[in-house]
Amino acid sequence: MKLYTYFRSSAAFRVRIALNVKDLRYESLFVHLAKGEHRRPEYAKVNPQGLLPTLELDDGIRLNQSLAIIEYLEDKYPRPPLLPSDAVGKARVRGLAALVACEIHPLNNLRVLQHLKRSLGQSEEQVNAWYRHWIADGLAKLEAQLDPKAKFAYGDAPTMADCCLVPQIFNAKRYDCNLAPYPTTMRVFEQCMRLEAFDRAQPAKQPDAE
Amino acid sequence: MKLYTYFRSSAAFRVRIALNVKDLRYESLFVHLAKGEHRRPEYAKVNPQGLLPTLELDDGIRLNQSLAIIEYLEDKYPRPPLLPSDAVGKARVRGLAALVACEIHPLNNLRVLQHLKRSLGQSEEQVNAWYRHWIADGLAKLEAQLDPKAKFAYGDAPTMADCCLVPQIFNAKRYDCNLAPYPTTMRVFEQCMRLEAFDRAQPAKQPDAE
Repeated sequence: MKLYTYFRSSAAFRVRIALNVKDLRYESLFVHLAKGEHRRPEYAKVNPQGLLPTLELDDGIRLNQSLAIIEYLEDKYPRPPLLPSDAVGKARVRGLAALVACEIHPLNNLRVLQHLKRSLGQSEEQVNAWYRHWIADGLAKLEAQLDPKAKFAYGDAPTMADCCLVPQIFNAKRYDCNLAPYPTTMRVFEQCMRLEAFDRAQPAKQPDAE
Repeated sequence: MKLYTYFRSSAAFRVRIALNVKDLRYESLFVHLAKGEHRRPEYAKVNPQGLLPTLELDDGIRLNQSLAIIEYLEDKYPRPPLLPSDAVGKARVRGLAALVACEIHPLNNLRVLQHLKRSLGQSEEQVNAWYRHWIADGLAKLEAQLDPKAKFAYGDAPTMADCCLVPQIFNAKRYDCNLAPYPTTMRVFEQCMRLEAFDRAQPAKQPDAE
């Protein structure tokens, strides 16, 4: 398999974690988001959405959207699982993953921050305030939903929810967000980062890291 | 089952469609988003994320996040299916659903528009321009990914992708977005709206419609 990735893309980071948890080998193809390489016509042929990540299967089929890719990996390589076996557990994990992927991250990705700056004329300080506002809003929701007694985001093994939580915390740290109000979230984050699958997927350990 | 819903919530609209496609009966409990009823402490007990929709099962268990709820319905009530049977098809449908749910809708929901107005001091016209910008950006991505030969968003039967596409087009129409550049998307939309399951779920046909 080949993964179109960028070290700082948190959607690609989610998929890197999932691939590592399932011990799947992949080749990395680097697309430099900050240089706008995802907007090049060559990449539009790879991914019509023009977003990262894209997973290219060995038969050449290309899949996009991080959560859809992780669900695909779960379908094809069920061990170790990234979803619980029961329907309610699955819904809980997917609900936590969606909280990050649909409520927090979309407001803070690069193209939104660039739009705020370029089209709305917001200063760097205002853009950072926007970032922190949505991190605080979203992480408060996440913290409210996590079970303080669970080891990971759901239960005692990593799931798709942790694949989303960890990159989001990396982003929050990068923008110096105050993480003190989210002790359960941060305990889960630290727990995940003790695992080699998560650690190896982090931005600084990617070959394209700057 | 009980659905906490608001006629204009497009996330609730997605779930209403899925419930109707699967011919599942449910009781509606109305939470008035524009009046901020989702921020009341009573609702925080129902849904710690403070968002719509919430699905309450007959045993009292409550699920949140529209895509997680639809996946739950698919797990428990597989007929008629809202996902194809093959892993690649599933990934394609989930990728289209995520494009709407993670890339378009989050930028345009009520709390973001309110934040732009109240905290960033954007005028109503500027907020509308923001709305239309992200609709145009997102629908172009969707249009690029849809197969012009398919009847629905994926294949010849409605899927989870259509459950997301239709409410997004309702939103776009409400904000007078130009939809001419998206002929395949609009053909799929019209196709869906011919189905009673989609029609009956639309905002104007809800008991709490204003």
